[in-house]
Amino acid sequence: MAVKENLRPGGRSARVQASVHKAVRELLADMNRAEVTIPLIAASAGVTPSTIYRRWGDLQELLADVAVERLRPDMQPIDAGSGKADLQAWAEQYAEEMSSGPGREMIRDVLAAQAGANACKCSEYTRQQILVIAERAKARSEIFPDVDRVMDDVVAPIMYRILFGDVPDAARVSDLVSRVMTTKD
Amino acid sequence: MAVKENLRPGGRSARVQASVHKAVRELLADMNRAEVTIPLIAASAGVTPSTIYRRWGDLQELLADVAVERLRPDMQPIDAGSGKADLQAWAEQYAEEMSSGPGREMIRDVLAAQAGANACKCSEYTRQQILVIAERAKARSEIFPDVDRVMDDVVAPIMYRILFGDVPDAARVSDLVSRVMTTKD
Repeated sequence: MAVKENLRPGGRSARVQASVHKAVRELLADMNRAEVTIPLIAASAGVTPSTIYRRWGDLQELLADVAVERLRPDMQPIDAGSGKADLQAWAEQYAEEMSSGPGREMIRDVLAAQAGANACKCSEYTRQQILVIAERAKARSEIFPDVDRVMDDVVAPIMYRILFGDVPDAARVSDLVSRVMTTKD
Repeated sequence: MAVKENLRPGGRSARVQASVHKAVRELLADMNRAEVTIPLIAASAGVTPSTIYRRWGDLQELLADVAVERLRPDMQPIDAGSGKADLQAWAEQYAEEMSSGPGREMIRDVLAAQAGANACKCSEYTRQQILVIAERAKARSEIFPDVDRVMDDVVAPIMYRILFGDVPDAARVSDLVSRVMTTKD
């Protein structure tokens, strides 16, 4: 659906992208990622390998491009009645999704690409989610910490633990949220 | 030097590792990492490719193994007279080193490997450094935050920014350190 909506008149480029992304997702579902190659993707997407090389440069960039699309949030943060409850619910879901097997693979793909653009995009998606929560809190006349502060104090520790081999459990996440909600400066 | 010290009697395995690591470091200094292959490394190290495959599994694991060795701190944190000054000096250096080109490549290599063991080791090195600072502060009868707290509040935000496309500047790092040194709980 989203694909059709993105098509501009004569959007051959958008169709190529959609078809290549779809091929990557299907291949990753079916086989070990180490076996996925650009020729395989090209054959499955019905394009030539050179089309893929021209557009994405290499396999790693293409995987990062697909991963960042999958990391794009598909919903607004749940409205749980208060800024703290919203942040709590959001952070729990974020920690769970990102520390899952597919979550870790997507993060790894995004970070493995040489160009950092996709990593920025990924962080920006997260920031946008926090911003929605912050604005909702403001609309309720609540006090809510600065978005940067939430990124540093809640998002960064969760992501650091996931990347460097720990699992951020629910109690830990809850503690991070409580702390950021009570900081004064 | 370090290599010889690590040799156990009959330490053929340690010699192979040292020789392969050295070959990787030299090749990475000379050429683009995308051009570095296991056959090239094997030729340069004077071992067979199958020796490398047997021991490391694949190129990514080998690169992660080399990167984590390079990320191992080669000095104690500087003693700057107080826990806060020590942490400040350490955090500045950490942010600088990790956000440099070679620093980013090493982190990327460590995180790109499927097995997470090297990422854990890397985080453990960092933790050990903080622990040294904490114990020094304790010996001076200073108050110093919990090591986990420092990991969450100083290390994680620095690493998150580096990985997701931002640069943690000196003022930011200094702010993170000041905050963790004044938290009460």
